[in-house]
Amino acid sequence: MRNKLIYKYIGKVLIGYSFLLLIPFIVGLFFHEFASSFLICMTFTFLVGFVLIHIKNDKLHLFARDGFKIVTLSWIIISIIGAVPIMLDTGISFVDALFESISGFTTTGATMFSNPEILPKSILFWRDFMHFVGGMGVLAFAMAIIPLAKNDKSLYLLKAEMPGPTVSRLVPSIKKTLYYLYGIYFALTLIEIILLLIGGMSLFDSVLISMGTAGTGGFSPLSTSAATYSAFSQSVVALFMFLFGVNFNIYFLILLKNFKSAYKSEELRAYIGLYLFTVFILVINSLSLFNNFGEALLHGFFNTSSFMSSTGFSIGNVNIYPTVCRIWILFIMVVSACAGSTCGGFKVARLVLIFKIIKRDIQKMVHPNCVKTITFDGKKVEEETLNSTKSFMFLYIILILLILFIVGLDDFPLETSINAVFTTFGNVGLYFEVPSFTMFSDLSKLAMSLGMLLGRLEIYPIIALLINRRD
Amino acid sequence: MRNKLIYKYIGKVLIGYSFLLLIPFIVGLFFHEFASSFLICMTFTFLVGFVLIHIKNDKLHLFARDGFKIVTLSWIIISIIGAVPIMLDTGISFVDALFESISGFTTTGATMFSNPEILPKSILFWRDFMHFVGGMGVLAFAMAIIPLAKNDKSLYLLKAEMPGPTVSRLVPSIKKTLYYLYGIYFALTLIEIILLLIGGMSLFDSVLISMGTAGTGGFSPLSTSAATYSAFSQSVVALFMFLFGVNFNIYFLILLKNFKSAYKSEELRAYIGLYLFTVFILVINSLSLFNNFGEALLHGFFNTSSFMSSTGFSIGNVNIYPTVCRIWILFIMVVSACAGSTCGGFKVARLVLIFKIIKRDIQKMVHPNCVKTITFDGKKVEEETLNSTKSFMFLYIILILLILFIVGLDDFPLETSINAVFTTFGNVGLYFEVPSFTMFSDLSKLAMSLGMLLGRLEIYPIIALLINRRD
Repeated sequence: MRNKLIYKYIGKVLIGYSFLLLIPFIVGLFFHEFASSFLICMTFTFLVGFVLIHIKNDKLHLFARDGFKIVTLSWIIISIIGAVPIMLDTGISFVDALFESISGFTTTGATMFSNPEILPKSILFWRDFMHFVGGMGVLAFAMAIIPLAKNDKSLYLLKAEMPGPTVSRLVPSIKKTLYYLYGIYFALTLIEIILLLIGGMSLFDSVLISMGTAGTGGFSPLSTSAATYSAFSQSVVALFMFLFGVNFNIYFLILLKNFKSAYKSEELRAYIGLYLFTVFILVINSLSLFNNFGEALLHGFFNTSSFMSSTGFSIGNVNIYPTVCRIWILFIMVVSACAGSTCGGFKVARLVLIFKIIKRDIQKMVHPNCVKTITFDGKKVEEETLNSTKSFMFLYIILILLILFIVGLDDFPLETSINAVFTTFGNVGLYFEVPSFTMFSDLSKLAMSLGMLLGRLEIYPIIALLINRRD
Repeated sequence: MRNKLIYKYIGKVLIGYSFLLLIPFIVGLFFHEFASSFLICMTFTFLVGFVLIHIKNDKLHLFARDGFKIVTLSWIIISIIGAVPIMLDTGISFVDALFESISGFTTTGATMFSNPEILPKSILFWRDFMHFVGGMGVLAFAMAIIPLAKNDKSLYLLKAEMPGPTVSRLVPSIKKTLYYLYGIYFALTLIEIILLLIGGMSLFDSVLISMGTAGTGGFSPLSTSAATYSAFSQSVVALFMFLFGVNFNIYFLILLKNFKSAYKSEELRAYIGLYLFTVFILVINSLSLFNNFGEALLHGFFNTSSFMSSTGFSIGNVNIYPTVCRIWILFIMVVSACAGSTCGGFKVARLVLIFKIIKRDIQKMVHPNCVKTITFDGKKVEEETLNSTKSFMFLYIILILLILFIVGLDDFPLETSINAVFTTFGNVGLYFEVPSFTMFSDLSKLAMSLGMLLGRLEIYPIIALLINRRD
């Protein structure tokens, strides 16, 4: 770490984080729990942060590349610290607690607890609070920080991240951008809480489920996930899972009453198209498995929302769906929803670009002399961006294969292994044929934890951390 | 078909093909079979060919694009005609016979017959003769015809097909190129026949197995594939499966005594590296499953050769291998062996290029201003070629997914579906967890037949056929 300024920023992150650690402690107090582990972690985090911000730095300029190092390191440190209360208060191993914590912050929602009912309330709160914080972090990262890096030539690969409109292009200052983003994020979460309360859910569950939805995480306070809630509550959750998979720029455009631009968004259209097709596939292939059409429809909508937004709540056994649904869902889990949302995965925007690239390649065969530019939302996409998108897809596939190979060493059936890797790398958390993540070896758990981080941070920041610039 | 010259060339192909249809008939006579179906097909094919070459053409110039149309149409017509004797002499349905015939000509080797022993000798010969002819066709296509298309701008996508050295670059005329290629092909086949005869195999089986090896096909005259042959014969087959997966240019370089170039071939090195790693993975993960190390080693070598060269002979149940082996084998089935050999799959040369592209992308992150060209065998690879390789990979993945989705409709377990699609698209024919290809629906069989053709002709020629040039 040549640039000592990095320490200072990580220190700032840690001090902010220490205050967040206070919240589950306070929640615990309401339930007559004295979750001292959070207090200990909070004090420790604050002190380390305090030391870090006072390290004498050499006043170097902070490059965007350093920004990515800060982000990656912060995610790792925050996850490690967040694992400590889980380990101390539930008695699971550190690797398990780290898996749970990374699953929380990366908003995956794959859990080590098959009976969360027995957990302390502070831990239950903490699990979904991690989702909420992780979702905020991703939003800030993808929407506010990445576009700032556009002028740094060394990060050209990251320019592929956001092919659509970004709030930062609409609002001049990063502070204002974050203000709007978090405003939308909190408002949507609040509306969901209220609707769930109206539906008769307890306040505690409403808050937890809503935070889990907002971050597209999927930890539930119940071992049955969302299966025991009312059909109304389930519909609300399904709706909000869908909504949190939408690019937040769309909400911003709607707030600006720029409905035309929102309506014209190519990513939104593709997202809705894929969404409806998935509902269709699930419903027609499960009609005979449910008591009536309404039930099949509710399950179809809920599961589509859950898989596609990479949330991972469930309202029943998804293993009932036939093979054709499982294949399609595997694809959907990898693609996930919109860029600029809190969801994981490859993102619909990139899929649209990939299809446009293939279409152009085929057109070039027909009209070899015709030079065609690719547009996205009416704007020309640079060739550099297209190449980056292709490269990103390669890395995505190769890293998934690599983790699959490691998880394969545990010798569970192929489908189990594939689903476990896809659902963690895509930050989904729901799965077919995976009885419980506790059954995997520590090596597999660590590999999948790395997969969750790679999926969440979209690979490059982690590579940026691993590679030291020598020029 | 605007260019009537195409008919003339297809007519020529059909006349040549009609003579090939005579050979299984003659073989049948030796075994006191009068396989009239071959005589009928031969007469029909000859007559149609005769009519086609006499269609008055408008004397237009033949573009390379038309060449690809000729190739694709020829493969389809030849497969359809080749299915007729199979249907007539065994009583299976036309779709099944077409699957068998396409599986033969594309050198896949996935079969509709679980007890080939009961088939007439002429049909047994025909099955492996299709492999032999298909292998020759692919060699001629990949090594002699594609490079000729390099000057046709409309086929720039195909320039990616052969990144390595090609015989046509070493030998000036296409006739001489084919002469050398077929010389090597026949010589290697003959050596295998002799070795198998020395090992005590019957002449009929030796010829069939050798033709099946040469085309990297995998149809066996026995229901046990190669399991009942002696360990010596199995070793010979394993060795030749490996050898037929090598780029034929290497043999040509060896004939020219240019050992240095052969030794330096990047694709050959990567092929051998992947090969040895696969043997290693299979052997260490199956030690406990066999009686002794020698047996595990023989099975490891044989199965690696069989999967990687896309041949598909077997000497035992491959379902015994654990999950990590299955995952690796799925990868190996998709990649397969060298370009310019008779094998199917994505080809090692392209995999090497993809890894070089990813390496450069990561290097660009570190040294953004450093412009680095990618070389292959010491020569610079054009950016156009790199882009085509990327596009080819996308198409490959998307088409596999599409066929997987169709096959998924049959609702067999996910692993069965994945293996069936991978083994047909990769032209392998050996598989895990697929009891028999007869169990699939006609729709799935047709989808997999299309997959075999797409895999064999490397996608673009088929797209060229589907798209009519309008400029």
